[in-house]
Amino acid sequence: MALRTLSAKNAAALDQELMSTGAFSIDQLMELAGLSVSQAVFKLQPISRGKRVLVACGPGNNGGDGLVAARHLFHYGYQPTVYYPKQSKNELYQRLAKQLKDLKVPFTEDFPSALQQTDHIVDAIFGFSFSGQVREPFPKVIEALRDTKLPVLAVDAPSSWNIESGPPDDGPGKDFMPEALISLTAPKPLVKWFKGRHFLGGRFLSPEMAEKYGLDVPEYEGLDQVVEVPVDGGKL
Amino acid sequence: MALRTLSAKNAAALDQELMSTGAFSIDQLMELAGLSVSQAVFKLQPISRGKRVLVACGPGNNGGDGLVAARHLFHYGYQPTVYYPKQSKNELYQRLAKQLKDLKVPFTEDFPSALQQTDHIVDAIFGFSFSGQVREPFPKVIEALRDTKLPVLAVDAPSSWNIESGPPDDGPGKDFMPEALISLTAPKPLVKWFKGRHFLGGRFLSPEMAEKYGLDVPEYEGLDQVVEVPVDGGKL
Repeated sequence: MALRTLSAKNAAALDQELMSTGAFSIDQLMELAGLSVSQAVFKLQPISRGKRVLVACGPGNNGGDGLVAARHLFHYGYQPTVYYPKQSKNELYQRLAKQLKDLKVPFTEDFPSALQQTDHIVDAIFGFSFSGQVREPFPKVIEALRDTKLPVLAVDAPSSWNIESGPPDDGPGKDFMPEALISLTAPKPLVKWFKGRHFLGGRFLSPEMAEKYGLDVPEYEGLDQVVEVPVDGGKL
Repeated sequence: MALRTLSAKNAAALDQELMSTGAFSIDQLMELAGLSVSQAVFKLQPISRGKRVLVACGPGNNGGDGLVAARHLFHYGYQPTVYYPKQSKNELYQRLAKQLKDLKVPFTEDFPSALQQTDHIVDAIFGFSFSGQVREPFPKVIEALRDTKLPVLAVDAPSSWNIESGPPDDGPGKDFMPEALISLTAPKPLVKWFKGRHFLGGRFLSPEMAEKYGLDVPEYEGLDQVVEVPVDGGKL
């Protein structure tokens, strides 16, 4: 039996519940989400395969997870570069970006050039609240992610995929199949179309919340904030 | 050469700088600090030596680190119990306590009984802002920590020790020597008097801040948020 999935609507409701009755702050949740992402990169692409990692961040929470991940990757010894063309005025994201600047992590606006100078890529452009509209400058970025031979780890969703129905019918996302995906808290329905390595992060879900939302709590190992799970058909 | 230490005054200044120009929120820093503490417990006292862990939390930031650690320990498979007799009205600590209650982690007011039903202990009572005054109900708690045969991990300082000058001249803290200590960000001067295993946590310090405060950035391994370091005389 495959892992149970969480619809876009329920993912938003769960986040909202964590931050209201669950008493988590968004700072806390984003720190833990980004930490999970950084650990998935470490497992998927150990430093021995190249230190350089390009983190592509979108304007929302997915991008925030990417900013946190880039910081942890720096501390693991990677050399992250951040592509963050639509920087939010949101105070939290601004702080996360400042934390990276204090580490002298470079920010680039030139995605094609950055792609030529990296060993692996994190796609933190769009997540579970993606609306279906890929606005500028992202169509070309998704095209480049589709065409690159480098390994891409997508956060929560291959960017531009529909959360419920997977790859779009046209546009660059149609044939975009990242090497790996990390689902935060729970896989979204799009995993049905995903072929690649699949990680799950979010080791903070209470058994009660998992039950309420009909989710599986996977068996993490040791201190890991991330666990590799079969994409489909596999048992936990 | 021993690790360079951070005075109480500079520890407070560094925290303040992280949260102002450093752009970290206290939620973020406390999450990372508590995560470090939980990882030190895991390394010091693997679950195979007993799942039960009693986390003694004081009224301030040291207690907050303990609350975060207890949550992570739950997710690793430990059975934490929290002793938190002076619960702060501070909104953050209240939220951290709520997160534990949602996991059904028990809170106890009876420290002596809790000591009889645990396998290891975290001392998160007083940290680097300890004023020298051990107020009720903590004198008896520190006495019990001094006398127990169970392993105690102290967070930042064996509680009631003076941050600069180590064990107090009298009172229960005089002969209190925990099995292990985790120093957050950097060891405090009191480590000179400490005999036991010593961990360092806080894998978020920028090279620039370390230089400014004259600190060493230790070599963490892999994804670890904690590293064991020699107590004195040892090289990094």
